[in-house]
Amino acid sequence: MAKLMPKKVYIIGAGPGDPELLTVKAQRILRTADVVFHDELVSPEILGVVRPSAEIQNVGKRCGQKVISQEEINFRVVSQACEGRTVVRLKGGDPLIFGRAGEEMDALRRAGIDFEIVPGITAAFGAAALAQISLTDRRLASKVVFLSNHRCAEKTAAQTKETISKDSTVVMYMPGKDYGGLVERMLSAGLDADTPCLLVSCASTRQERIHQTTLENLSCSPHLSAPVIVVIGGVAAKPSQHEEELVFSGVAPQAE
Amino acid sequence: MAKLMPKKVYIIGAGPGDPELLTVKAQRILRTADVVFHDELVSPEILGVVRPSAEIQNVGKRCGQKVISQEEINFRVVSQACEGRTVVRLKGGDPLIFGRAGEEMDALRRAGIDFEIVPGITAAFGAAALAQISLTDRRLASKVVFLSNHRCAEKTAAQTKETISKDSTVVMYMPGKDYGGLVERMLSAGLDADTPCLLVSCASTRQERIHQTTLENLSCSPHLSAPVIVVIGGVAAKPSQHEEELVFSGVAPQAE
Repeated sequence: MAKLMPKKVYIIGAGPGDPELLTVKAQRILRTADVVFHDELVSPEILGVVRPSAEIQNVGKRCGQKVISQEEINFRVVSQACEGRTVVRLKGGDPLIFGRAGEEMDALRRAGIDFEIVPGITAAFGAAALAQISLTDRRLASKVVFLSNHRCAEKTAAQTKETISKDSTVVMYMPGKDYGGLVERMLSAGLDADTPCLLVSCASTRQERIHQTTLENLSCSPHLSAPVIVVIGGVAAKPSQHEEELVFSGVAPQAE
Repeated sequence: MAKLMPKKVYIIGAGPGDPELLTVKAQRILRTADVVFHDELVSPEILGVVRPSAEIQNVGKRCGQKVISQEEINFRVVSQACEGRTVVRLKGGDPLIFGRAGEEMDALRRAGIDFEIVPGITAAFGAAALAQISLTDRRLASKVVFLSNHRCAEKTAAQTKETISKDSTVVMYMPGKDYGGLVERMLSAGLDADTPCLLVSCASTRQERIHQTTLENLSCSPHLSAPVIVVIGGVAAKPSQHEEELVFSGVAPQAE
């Protein structure tokens, strides 16, 4: 039997949660895929776009722990593509920020398998759209810095200070449950205690919530359901038109 | 005659250029809009999604000059909505980064007009997808900073230095034609002369081009067609699988 040609692999961003925030291209490819490997945070509504006969595998973290190693994910993606199946690697938000797409692309390159990236709406923009704030409102910010709390925690105070200035908007991905360390790092980086902060939870889904606060009060915020994005800086004080409907005022149904 | 209720206004991100990189939601709303006010950089292919009977107005910059003032744009959007028409304000990329959406949302708030933001794929992610680089590859970068050259030029060297460190990926929007000032600012911010740089032009369109260089050689780069994104940092050295096809090697058909 002739050896099968490996099929092209699609690494696709699923966006923030609403299936309507998939790109037209992502939707088209999901409807033709043979097998979809997805992260934990990809919503059931988005998986509903995948054609019923396709195989769907959750290869995400559970309770913060990878149950499947990165090597195993790479192996499965490569071997399915080599069997001539159309493989989609589906990641929450955009695939090229705060994920392991770097390692996955390297594995595909080593295996000589063609691949294509289909960008998605990253969580920061889903959050900003819900909160109706410009991340770089020129009256308040000249730039935007995307950080993850985990990687930020690995840095010294001096290194963090190198990144942040008062005219930055800071968008913190994966802030975790305990905001104490985050607040301490931002204060030692030189931000004022009254710097506005916006917590945005599950933007673009039915569970979406916003909580507006300041850096000094961030630790007293209610726990909102993951995924949560924290926007820090002057732009986070801008009122959402929907503030009354959306601002969180109670106990979250699920802890983050 | 009864006074018409103002219609909700949609501020929509058009993404990087490929109509298939519109979100499903953007596509749906564009197909039902009565009037679309768009920026210069929104491609004809994307405007082709708008239903034929709708009114389309270009309110963008020509040759870098606003021919229509921000106040005039705000006035047109508000008055069309007050006439009961479904208005779309269509912006390249995502509407909430490096545009004037802040001012436009304020005008709508003042006029008491409801609005909704539909996020789009911002240029940075269109560029990263084409170049097949992770903006935050954890082996090379711990964060990503989005700057615009124009706003960066307004800052002192010390202020720029506050933002940038060697483990940052810097994404420069609207880098202009002359990279001299940009290079100087990055060098005085402490980046090395051999820091990898990637110029990405017109990502996701038929005119897409990539040029890989270093900070010290950036000024000798060919002029690529706008919109151009410059990615600066370790991740910009990662090879695209399509490098040979895409890396620019000649004189650009159009000056930027």
